[in-house]
Order: sequence, then structure tokens, then C-alpha cells
Amino acid sequence: MIPRYTRQEMAKIWEPENKYRIWMEIEAYACEAQEIIDVIPKGVAKAVWERGNFDVARIDEIEAEVKHDVIAFLTNLAEYVGEEARFVHQGMTSSDVLDTAFSVQLKQSAELLEQGIERVMAALEKRAKEHMMTLCIGRSHGIHGEPTTFGLKLAGHYAAFKRCLARVQAAREEISICAISGAVGTYATVDPSVETYVADKMGLKPEDVSTQVIPRDRHAMFFSALAVTASVIENLSVEIRHLQRTEVREAEEFFASGQKGSSAMPHKRNPILTENLTGLARLVRSAVIPALENVALWHERDISHSSVERGIAPDACVTLDFALQRMAMVVEKLTIMPDNMMKNLEQMGGLVFSQRVMLTLTQAGIAREAAYRIVQRNAMKVWESEGKTKFLDLLKADSEVAEKIPASELDAIFNYAYYTKNVDYVFDRVFG
Amino acid sequence: MIPRYTRQEMAKIWEPENKYRIWMEIEAYACEAQEIIDVIPKGVAKAVWERGNFDVARIDEIEAEVKHDVIAFLTNLAEYVGEEARFVHQGMTSSDVLDTAFSVQLKQSAELLEQGIERVMAALEKRAKEHMMTLCIGRSHGIHGEPTTFGLKLAGHYAAFKRCLARVQAAREEISICAISGAVGTYATVDPSVETYVADKMGLKPEDVSTQVIPRDRHAMFFSALAVTASVIENLSVEIRHLQRTEVREAEEFFASGQKGSSAMPHKRNPILTENLTGLARLVRSAVIPALENVALWHERDISHSSVERGIAPDACVTLDFALQRMAMVVEKLTIMPDNMMKNLEQMGGLVFSQRVMLTLTQAGIAREAAYRIVQRNAMKVWESEGKTKFLDLLKADSEVAEKIPASELDAIFNYAYYTKNVDYVFDRVFG
Amino acid sequence: MIPRYTRQEMAKIWEPENKYRIWMEIEAYACEAQEIIDVIPKGVAKAVWERGNFDVARIDEIEAEVKHDVIAFLTNLAEYVGEEARFVHQGMTSSDVLDTAFSVQLKQSAELLEQGIERVMAALEKRAKEHMMTLCIGRSHGIHGEPTTFGLKLAGHYAAFKRCLARVQAAREEISICAISGAVGTYATVDPSVETYVADKMGLKPEDVSTQVIPRDRHAMFFSALAVTASVIENLSVEIRHLQRTEVREAEEFFASGQKGSSAMPHKRNPILTENLTGLARLVRSAVIPALENVALWHERDISHSSVERGIAPDACVTLDFALQRMAMVVEKLTIMPDNMMKNLEQMGGLVFSQRVMLTLTQAGIAREAAYRIVQRNAMKVWESEGKTKFLDLLKADSEVAEKIPASELDAIFNYAYYTKNVDYVFDRVFG
Amino acid sequence: MIPRYTRQEMAKIWEPENKYRIWMEIEAYACEAQEIIDVIPKGVAKAVWERGNFDVARIDEIEAEVKHDVIAFLTNLAEYVGEEARFVHQGMTSSDVLDTAFSVQLKQSAELLEQGIERVMAALEKRAKEHMMTLCIGRSHGIHGEPTTFGLKLAGHYAAFKRCLARVQAAREEISICAISGAVGTYATVDPSVETYVADKMGLKPEDVSTQVIPRDRHAMFFSALAVTASVIENLSVEIRHLQRTEVREAEEFFASGQKGSSAMPHKRNPILTENLTGLARLVRSAVIPALENVALWHERDISHSSVERGIAPDACVTLDFALQRMAMVVEKLTIMPDNMMKNLEQMGGLVFSQRVMLTLTQAGIAREAAYRIVQRNAMKVWESEGKTKFLDLLKADSEVAEKIPASELDAIFNYAYYTKNVDYVFDRVFG
Repeated sequence: MIPRYTRQEMAKIWEPENKYRIWMEIEAYACEAQEIIDVIPKGVAKAVWERGNFDVARIDEIEAEVKHDVIAFLTNLAEYVGEEARFVHQGMTSSDVLDTAFSVQLKQSAELLEQGIERVMAALEKRAKEHMMTLCIGRSHGIHGEPTTFGLKLAGHYAAFKRCLARVQAAREEISICAISGAVGTYATVDPSVETYVADKMGLKPEDVSTQVIPRDRHAMFFSALAVTASVIENLSVEIRHLQRTEVREAEEFFASGQKGSSAMPHKRNPILTENLTGLARLVRSAVIPALENVALWHERDISHSSVERGIAPDACVTLDFALQRMAMVVEKLTIMPDNMMKNLEQMGGLVFSQRVMLTLTQAGIAREAAYRIVQRNAMKVWESEGKTKFLDLLKADSEVAEKIPASELDAIFNYAYYTKNVDYVFDRVFG
Repeated sequence: MIPRYTRQEMAKIWEPENKYRIWMEIEAYACEAQEIIDVIPKGVAKAVWERGNFDVARIDEIEAEVKHDVIAFLTNLAEYVGEEARFVHQGMTSSDVLDTAFSVQLKQSAELLEQGIERVMAALEKRAKEHMMTLCIGRSHGIHGEPTTFGLKLAGHYAAFKRCLARVQAAREEISICAISGAVGTYATVDPSVETYVADKMGLKPEDVSTQVIPRDRHAMFFSALAVTASVIENLSVEIRHLQRTEVREAEEFFASGQKGSSAMPHKRNPILTENLTGLARLVRSAVIPALENVALWHERDISHSSVERGIAPDACVTLDFALQRMAMVVEKLTIMPDNMMKNLEQMGGLVFSQRVMLTLTQAGIAREAAYRIVQRNAMKVWESEGKTKFLDLLKADSEVAEKIPASELDAIFNYAYYTKNVDYVFDRVFG
Repeated sequence: MIPRYTRQEMAKIWEPENKYRIWMEIEAYACEAQEIIDVIPKGVAKAVWERGNFDVARIDEIEAEVKHDVIAFLTNLAEYVGEEARFVHQGMTSSDVLDTAFSVQLKQSAELLEQGIERVMAALEKRAKEHMMTLCIGRSHGIHGEPTTFGLKLAGHYAAFKRCLARVQAAREEISICAISGAVGTYATVDPSVETYVADKMGLKPEDVSTQVIPRDRHAMFFSALAVTASVIENLSVEIRHLQRTEVREAEEFFASGQKGSSAMPHKRNPILTENLTGLARLVRSAVIPALENVALWHERDISHSSVERGIAPDACVTLDFALQRMAMVVEKLTIMPDNMMKNLEQMGGLVFSQRVMLTLTQAGIAREAAYRIVQRNAMKVWESEGKTKFLDLLKADSEVAEKIPASELDAIFNYAYYTKNVDYVFDRVFG
Repeated sequence: MIPRYTRQEMAKIWEPENKYRIWMEIEAYACEAQEIIDVIPKGVAKAVWERGNFDVARIDEIEAEVKHDVIAFLTNLAEYVGEEARFVHQGMTSSDVLDTAFSVQLKQSAELLEQGIERVMAALEKRAKEHMMTLCIGRSHGIHGEPTTFGLKLAGHYAAFKRCLARVQAAREEISICAISGAVGTYATVDPSVETYVADKMGLKPEDVSTQVIPRDRHAMFFSALAVTASVIENLSVEIRHLQRTEVREAEEFFASGQKGSSAMPHKRNPILTENLTGLARLVRSAVIPALENVALWHERDISHSSVERGIAPDACVTLDFALQRMAMVVEKLTIMPDNMMKNLEQMGGLVFSQRVMLTLTQAGIAREAAYRIVQRNAMKVWESEGKTKFLDLLKADSEVAEKIPASELDAIFNYAYYTKNVDYVFDRVFG
């Protein structure tokens, strides 16, 4: 958790306070379940709910001695609950509490991340609709390709975030798991009904086979979903960084009054937010490999995953949460420059119509290969002139073209509307 | 693709022959669709289906000149199809073919991987049911914990593979995508109905927004699902390697007559298959980061992902396919040694009953902390004696215990059935 | 930085206080250099050294407005220095300060890590020499191979840490770099002599070409060295975890009085420190990929690396520092059990001598393949008997063996001294 | 190994033919050493050198039965050598051959990679010197910063590759290791003098402690050096891709006559080689994590590393070798466009001089903060006008500026030579 990239909403989920509160709830619900089946006396759960409490500093103190966090917590809880405390945690093992609580924290985090994705989606949808028909050049390989619209670009990113929403939801489902199965997962000392009861109360599902811990393939899948989402953020961020380049200038991050782009060069306005997001994406992705390495625990469990998760779980969740909010803000406030888009679109002297010319030649009976050569021959001259020579002029002057396409038809070909005719079709599919 | 870790079934999917066949199908179906909307003359599709063919060596030859694989393919295809060929690929861009075909290859691979997972699951289910009640020690941290059954262990791995089956199925759905949207994805030169038609014929769904390429977050998710599956294989492999250790000897990989464990030490029988699987898991996992790095392509697309996918796609699919089949074979033929399991279970002089003793003390009115200390005090003596001193004897001789638990009740506590009473419950949940 | 895995010595290096102090030193030395070449008036450096100061909270406050950390720092510094402050940072760009200071922090960290490695080496050397001739079984594939000594095992780990020491030293050299070259690295506004001067004062070397930032391939190499060191820690940790397994019990982590191994099972003594180190190794390794992804910055620099380094630099340094100290402590206090080592060594009924028997047969004129078969034939019987049948007895009774090796010679072969005769040779090479 | 990204020089190193030839050499030299110390009869080495041979297909056939590659090789070798063969491999274990041979292959690969790096360096040096004083804009964050020269850009990349050369050389040293220490590494069955002898003959150094295998931290370091080199390739590739963007057009990959940029858009010339190199860098990097995961082998060795290395070793070496040659070729043939560089440099109406103006104001007695505001105020107007309004004109008209800097001095400030005055200093440092 890097303070400057941390929102309190997410940080709170990963603070000891929240963790211990969940532990206490699990223990209290487990007592309720144990009372139902008469394993412990009536009244224990009530005592926990009414008098149960904990003190983080005190728990730390006890843990320093016993070197076991759950025992430290239970000892402290007993200091509040009193007599009835000896029935708390009956037949359970630490992992029953630890892993179920970890599930709850991941579930809470996923819910917050989903809100973040939805905010990005809302921003993208709004800006996409504003610029549904704003013409700009589509680029492949960084090279001008054919006309498209800025709205269509944003619609593509919207669709990617929508897929991420589904992935995080699926990851949340996958991790919304309760395991209360006792030592080595046999339910020898705790009846399966306790697990079912607690799961139900906590909004979780019981694990199929828990071997004391919840199997870590679930968590690996969870962090994979986060990493893909981070990469989708990177994709949009790289797009914006490209658009803000001095030579391109089609969009620009909001630049606050009073902001300084550079300590040395007062003229600078840099895309620092999306550069930052590019870096944050790398951080979130770095959780995936450790999460995968955590899967192969020894026998019924070892504890090597624990230190890993103390690092990656808060770090990946907090960083992705922050990144989503920042991404949304960037999109919401993005300065979009349609005039520059049009200027760039026209920069290459009409080359963007090259395919359409080729197709028209083909339809007029010229073999594809020959058509390609004719068009490329003219296009390269325009290319070399940096767009100063106009493609349309060259084509009109080329006898092989003129033979097949009358000048008036050529004029009609150089028409941007041709490229936007299906934008509404795509918008219907994405937003409809 | 490492030859010794390659099955022909999967390798074939990734051979040029299969790729070009899919390309040809896509082009042919696209022609059908174009004929329906009268963009190209009737009869082109028929010509492709009837005369269409390709020659891998010839394509290589053409590509060496034009430096573009799809153009090389189309040129070669035209050599077979003849006249009508000039209407093939009309209005399409290379990625329409490349990406849709790549989807098909990944889909075919996923189907084969699912069969592999199912074979592992079948093997695990069979062996789990055979050994449903075979007692063995459950271990946490590599240290004896409490009794469990070997069937329960295998049931846990079965459940993990079942989750992987669902993940690979979801990844297959996610990647079963067709994109035929033309240059920079505007459908300017190709009607959306072509995409819908081809998608339907090829068993795919159209991409929401394809910006010329199918967005790589889909592929990143695909390889993540493979990586998690590989890690689940590693988990089971590590379990078997542990069980085969000389000091443990609870299970052993099948050792073929004529096999040599070591060139130097003729007595050796090593778990080389599961060690190998542990390594193969690392290889499959190594595809995840490059796949994530592929997501942030520049603007409407760049081609940096292409070389990456030429490596990771066949490698990860072929390696995981091989690993699944080997994993299944290992489980099917695994030598399981119930006698050794029982010997190990009894090795620690009854310590495995320690929790139950503690719980009984608690239920008899001793505070949890005090009960823990009483039990630990006796347990450590047994531990130090390496199990030669019997835990039951010490407990009977401990006045604090004797006061609360009569000897006969203590005898009854030292009973393995206590730990297996819910095995059928779990089996019902997993296999029921 | 996870508090429980953090030592203050390392954490302090990464605190704002230390960072800003280094920034101030760089600025002060730069002023000295600028005064020498008369770019700024005499007395500025003196003013900075005498009145220069900073307040972390105040810097945060300013940064919240100007959104630029170096400008915020300089503004705050000026509040202390007064009039002369306007000559501070003259001609420099933020990265000159940021990157040079980051080098210093990494250098300081490397020095602390080297101390940690040396502590581990010292512990390993001491324990290795104590147990130079303590016999134990050497295992390949987890299966008993041939006798070795526990000292030799530890000597191997010592040699690995010694290599890591050299790697971290090389990484420190690689990163001990100063860059003061101004905007886009041209030295247009700051004379190269300033860089040379500051580098010399700070114990650094000037960067060859700095393009405003110090190229990130240096940092990638730095984190790679840390990751390899973490993996070497993992290797030793896995060894200890294996040795502590209940069935093996050849070594055990120190178990403090009052410690609790399990909340549920009072008999447990788990290798939690080395399990923890296994996890910490995964965390340290996770810094490598982001560090490699940081190398390809755009043009003369972008700032995507910054957020990454705010995470991985303190995290990897702090975690590895903690891990090294914990590793050293584990080795220093490790309970080593020579009796159990001998018991395990003898467990397989003499199979550990199989190679020597085979070699003797070969030297007696039997072809290698035939000798292998003869030995394997007898070995497998011992193997199946779990060591109850004695290998020596079987060999004596095997006519093909008896024909070539008299019984007395066979007896002489079953002698552990044969395997330890070169231990002193290796010790000389490693520790000599 | 992806055929299209493979050079035969490197592929041959990784073919079975080369591997078995090295195995044979190791065995022959080991025989020489064994003869010297009279462990085997004189004449065995001679027999191996004279009659020794192998047949890859036959080895495969034998391995299919014995499931052990070294035994299969030795069996085949014996078929050629005859009688004396039974003394070959005396006292050695498979890993002695496997690991030492693997070292040789990695050493050979490193030598080829070093040649590749040197070719890139030569190309960069030549082009850097050609364009030492070719003015272009330096960019930070993708935004115009200050003037620099194209030669200086290339010099920076040269310096990075030079560092990589040193890293690969160090990695080669680190891996030039011979281990012939017998089972579990005790030299019980093979005298240390054999190792020393073979190491010397093969140009290697003996391992300090080899525990049967050469410790994998060496290999992890090797692949890390390759990954950093790949990232440095990516860095230069990304630079070229940026420079080739349509709006930038300062450099362009060589475009062969007959080449087709796009099947759909005949006007395209895409930076496909550097995009490809960006992808290949991802592939090479993907070897690092598996190599790190290979370090923690169990006890004296397990074999999980083997399958990993069968994949990553040829793949990473072949891919990096190809990438270096392609990178060199791209630089050698790169079309560099000084006119466009100048056009872009002037695009922002003189804003690139902003820092120098600010510094002049400061030196004229204006506080840094005030100077920054004055300059930023004028710069933002130029920025908004997209460079149409000239910065120099605005400054002359700004009374706060005019008060401090006379117009003639302002004119003198707008001078590119100011930014190139130290280029020769840097060139001396880098190439001198």
C-alpha cells in the first residue's frame, strides 16, 4: 500500500480492525450454529455478540508471546467475553477463521473494484456518446490507417471494461467461500452444519473440500482477474498518452491551474496520470505469479502462502482500486480536440482512402494483385511527399485508374461518411 | 513445443496445415455471406470450396518475398481457385482472418484440454472411491496433524480439477470470438452481416468492438486459466512426490520393468513423472505475463502480440495437454500403500489425538488455555521420544487429566473412526 | 512493507526523511560545484548546509497544490534557506535529484543486504564446521541416494550465499550512479563538472548517457540480483522444511517455550519460519518483472517507472533484508539431530551402497550393464521389504556377485568412510 | 524455438547432435583423467576418441525403453567403442555429464549473444557518429522537452547495450562451470582430479559444491542477464516505433521493394520489425520466473528443473540471438530523416527554449518561482495556439520579461547550439 495510491475505502477493508471484526462475526455465528446442535451451551453466541470486542494493540502484545495470531485474538476476545469464551472456536482450527475472513475481505474488495469499473464504464459511455461521430484517424502499427470515430475508440475500451466487470464478478463468486472443517479438513471436531450456517450468514458458499485451508487455485484466479483488469487500464492509458504526444495532440489530460509539468521546463503539460496508471498496472500484475506459486501447498496445507498474501492482497486490491478511480477521473475530465483530430486525419493527403480505391478497382474488374500495385504506386508518392502531394490528384492522373474509375466517382470515394456508416450498429451492440 | 512433451493431437492444431485450413474456411464462409448481400458475384464461395487449396511450402516461398503471411496465403489460394479468387477476402483485413482463426485454434485446444482434465478427474474419482476409507495421516506444515483418509485427499484434488474444468470452459467461451470488421474495425468495407454469418458457421460469437484485432484481454484471461490449471497439476504432483519420499513411502509412481532410476545408483525409484510435471507447470505459467503484456497494444492495434503468441500459444497448449495426460496416467497407475499409511499414522505414539483430548478437557469444564497447556505438556514428551512414549499412557498418568476424563473414556477417544465420520458427507458433496 | 516483516534499519532508508536528506545533500553539493565554476554566487552552498532543512508534512502540503514532488521540496527548502535558495537546483531537472537519490537509497540498501548475507554465511559456516563429519543420507528426487555429511549440505548453501554476496555487490556497483545532466540529458543548462563533483562526494560514478533519467536496465539488474538471492533463501528454507517433516526429523527450527504450533492441535511444532521465508522469497521475486517492464521508457523518459519503484524498491529491499536476518537466525538456532540422521541413513537396509557394489563388479570384469542388472535385482528386493531385508545379505547370497567379490570385500564396501573422504577437500575449497 | 525467429548458428548449439558431442567429449576427457590416476586401464580414452560415436535415432530408441537419457547415450556409445566402454562414465553420475554439458551449451550461446550485442553496438556507434550533431527534439512524457541530437539518443542506446555485453559476459563466467562429483556430490566414487582435469580441457571452472547438480542460482542469473538485454532491445525498438509514427516520421525501418504493409491498405509502411522485437523481448523475459523457480530443488537435487530448461534454454537463447541480429539490421538500415526532425523541433513555436528563458530571468534577479510563472504564462498561450503564436514574440511583448532581458539577448537565447555544446563531451565518454 503506497499512501499516495491508496483510497481509504479500500484500505479500511485491509486494516486489522476490519479483519478482527470479521473474525469475531465468524466466531459468533459459529457459536450460534454449535448451540443449535447442542455442542455448546445456549447463550455463548449471545455473550459474544453482546460483550465481544477486541483491541488491536492488545492482540499484538499477546501474539508477540504466543506467536500465533488466531490464538492471540481468541485470548483477547476472551478477556471481553468472560466465562463463555471457552466455548468459542470449539472444534475449529485457525484456518477456518483466517481463510473464511480472507474470503470476506476479498469479496468486499471485489465489490469496491466493481464499483470502480462501473465508474470507468459510465465515463467511457458518456464520452463515447458525446464523440460518437467525431472523426479521427484509426491507426495500426502507429501508422495512419483509415478514418474512424473517437466514440468508436472509447466504445472499444468500454467493452473491455465491461468484460472486466464480468471477470471480477466471477472472481468474487469464486472466492466467496467459507471453510469451517477443522484440522486437516475432516469435520471430525466440527459438524458440517456449522460451516453451512456460517456460510449462509456471511453470504458465502461452503468449500467442496477444504483440507484445512481454502485451496489457493481460487485465489490465483482472483488475482488473475485483477491483473487482466489492470492491463485493460494500461491499454486505455497508453492510448491517451499517445493522443497527448506533442505531434498528435488529439486529447489531453486535464491540467489543473497551478500545476507544474516540469521543474525545469515551464512549458510542459505531461500525461502524468496515465503514465502513472501504466506503472500501477505493472504493480497489480506482479501479484499473479506469487498467487500461482501459492497453489502447490504441501499436503493438507503449509503456511508459505500467508506472507505472500499479506503483501499481494492489500497491495493489488488497493492499487487497482486507486487506478480505477484515477482512470475514471481521467476519462471524465479528458480534454478532447476534434479539430486536431481532423487535422491529423487529413495530414496524409488522402491516403486513408487507399483501400476503397483498391476495392473499387477490383470491382471494376482488375485483379486484386494488380489493383494493389496500382494503388501502392501512387500511395508511395504521396507518402514520400508527407501528404503534400494529394492522393486524389495522382489517381486522377493515372491512366490505369482513370480507365476504370471516372473522376466523379473518384471524388465520391474520398468521403468520410463511408467509414462511419456502421458506427451506430456497433454502438447498438455495445450500449444498446 | 518440446518434442518429448508433445502429443500429436494438440500439436496438429498448431501446425500450419490446420491454420491455413481454418483460414480457407473463413474466407469461403465470408464469400458465402458476401454473395448473399450481392457484394460479390454468386459462385465464388463454391469455387473456393471446390478448388480451394494451399501448399505450405509455396506459401513460405511467397511470404519470403511479400513479407506478409495473409497476402502470401491469398496469393497461393488464388493459384488454385483461379479467376474467382479476386473476390475472396473482399473488404477484409488480414486480422479478420488471423484473429478469427486464432480463436478457432484456441477453442480447439481448450476442448482437448477439457478432455485432459476430465481424464484426470475420472482417475482421481476412481482412486478416491477405492481409498475412500483408507486411513492416513493428514499433515499441515509437513508435520503430522490428525487422521484423514487417502480418498479425502484425492477428492480435494478432484474438486480442484473440476474448478479448472469450469475455468477452461469459461476461457473457451471467452475466446470463441469472430471478428470481421475490416481495417481499424469500422465495417466500412465489409458489412457486419459477414461477421455474423461466419461466426455462426464457425461456432463463434462476433466481437463487440474489434478495432481490427480481437482485444487481447480475452487471450490474457485464456492463458491465466491455463496457468491456474498447471498450478493445480503442480499441487497434486508435489503431493505425490512427498508421498514417495523414502521416509514416507505411502505412494509411488508406477515403475516400469526395465526402467532405470539412476545411472549411478541401481537401487533408485524416483518420482520423475511428478517432478517433470512440476517443471511443466512452471513452463505453462510462464505464458501469463507475456499474455498480459500483450493487452496494451497501440491505438487500433500493433503487431507486438504476434511473435509472443507464436511462442506461448502452441507452447502453453501443448505443454498443458501433455501434462494433463501424464497426470492422469500417474494417478491411474499410482501404487498406493495403505500399510505404510497406517504405519506412519501410528508413528507419533498417538499424538494425532491431541486435539480431541483437549476438546474433551474443555467440555469437562477446563478453560481452553489450561487444557491446551495440559495437552501440550504431555504431547511434547511424546514428541521428544519420537513416538516411543505413548501419548495415551502419559495422559492416563497425568492427574489433571485423570481428574476430568476417566481412563475408559480416554481409551475411547483414541479411535480413528472419529475422524472419518464425515467422509461420506464430503464425498456426497463432491461426487454426488 | 508489511510491518511484521520489516526491520527498522532498512525501513529508515526508504522513509521520506532519508530521501529528502539525500535530496538536500545533492542540492548542496551541486551548489558547491556551481560556485566553483562561477555559475552561482559564492555562499549558496554554505547557506544550504547551514540553514537548509525540510518538513515532510509541509512538503506534502505544497505537493498537493503543485502536483510535483521536487518542486514541493525546493519550495519548502527555500522557506528555510531564504534568499540564496533561488540559486539552488540551478539548471538541473527533477530527475537529476530523484534518480541520484534513488541510487543512494539502493546503494544503502545493498550495503545492508550484504551484511545480512554475511550473517547468513557466518551462521552456515559455523554450523557446517560443527557438522562437517555428521553423517546423513544424501537424497536425489526425495529418495535416498548415498551417504553425505550434514556439513557438506550446509557448505553448499554457504557457497550459494557467497555467490549472492558477489551478485549484490555487483548490483550495488551497477546502481551507484549519479546523473546530473539537466533536461533531456544534454548538459545544456548544467555543466558536466557538477555531475562529476556530486558523484565524487556521494560515492557514485557519473552515468555514461543519462537522457534525463538513469536508464532502467541498471535497476532491472539490481532487482534480479535480489530475486536470485531470495530464491537461494527459498532453497535453504525448503531443505529445512523437508528435514523437519515428521517422518524425517533430522533438523528442527528452534521452538520457543510458550510458543503454540496450532490453535487446534497442541502437539504441533511446525517449521513456520522457513515456510514464511518460502513465501517471502515469492514476494521478492515478484519485483523482477515490473523492473524489467520499466526499461522501455518512451523517448528520453516517461514517468511510468516511478509508481512501480515506489512499490517494489522499498518492498523488495525491506522484505529481503528481513528474510536474510530471519534465515540467519534459523540457521544459528537450528536444532540438528545426528541420531535421527543416522537412523534414516540406515533405514534402507544398506541400499545406499549399491553404486559402490556395482563399480566393484565392473572393476572385477563384469560389463556395466550386467553389473547394473545384478545390483538392481537385489536392490529391488530390499526396497520392497522397506529395508528389513539387508542388502549385504542378499549380495553375499547372490552367486553372480559372490563369484566376483569375496564376502570380506563386500563387508569392507559397506563402509561410510568411503563417502566422506573428500569432505575436507570441498571444505578447503569453500572455506579455505 | 519458433522457426521464423531462429538462426541456425544458435539452433545448432541446442540440437541433440551438439549436446551428445559435448557429452562424448566430457566422457573422453574424464577417461583421460581416470587413466592418469590409474582408476581405469590405459587406452580407454583413446578408444573413445577413435571409435566413439553416437546415433541420435538409436539413442531415442534405447531411451524409450530405459527411460533415462544418459544411460541410453552410454549404451549407444558402447555399441561403437566396444570392450573399453565398460570403463567409461566410471564413478560418475548422469548429472556430471548433463550439467557440465549444459554449461558448455550456455557458454557457447553466450558467446554468440555477445557477438550479436557487438553487432548492435557497432551499428549504433556508426549511426550515432553520422548523426552526432543532427538536431532533434528531446521528449519527456512524449511531450517536447528541449533540443538534443539524434546521435546522443543513439549513444544512450549504445551505452545500454555495452552494459548488456558486460552482463552477458559475467553471466557466461558464472555459468562456465564443470561439476563431476558423483552421486549426491561427495566425490566418493570419482576423484576430484577428474573434475579439475575435465574443467580445464573444456574451458570451465569446477563448481565449489555441486550436490550432484550445479546449483540453479547460476542459471537464474544467466537468464536474468538475457532478460535485461531483451528489455534493452525493447527500449530501442519502442523508440523507433515512436519515431516512425505518421505524425512524427523522424525515422523509418527500411521498406523493401515488393513489401506489403497491409493486405487491405496499400499505402501502409509499418514498423513491423521493431514491433516484432517488442514481442520477442516479452518472450525472452518469460524465462526469468521459471529459472528462479528452479533454484529451490529438493535436497541434493530433484529433476523438476529439467523440463523447464528443455524449454527456456533453447527458446531464450535462440530468440534473443535472433532479436539481436534483427535489431542490428534495423539500426544499420534505418532511414533517418533530419528534415522532419527539424520540422518537429520547430513545431511548438519556440517553447523548447522555455527553461533557458527562465534561467536567464533567475540570473537577472527574479526569484525562481516568479520566473517560472512568467515563463509558464507565455508558454501556455503558445501551447494553446499549437505553436502558431511564437514564443519569442510573446516574451518580447511581456513587460516583466522585457524589463530584465533586452530583445537582442532574447534573440540570442533562441539558439540551438546552446543545447549541443556538450555532445562531444558525452561522445568522448561513451566512445572515447
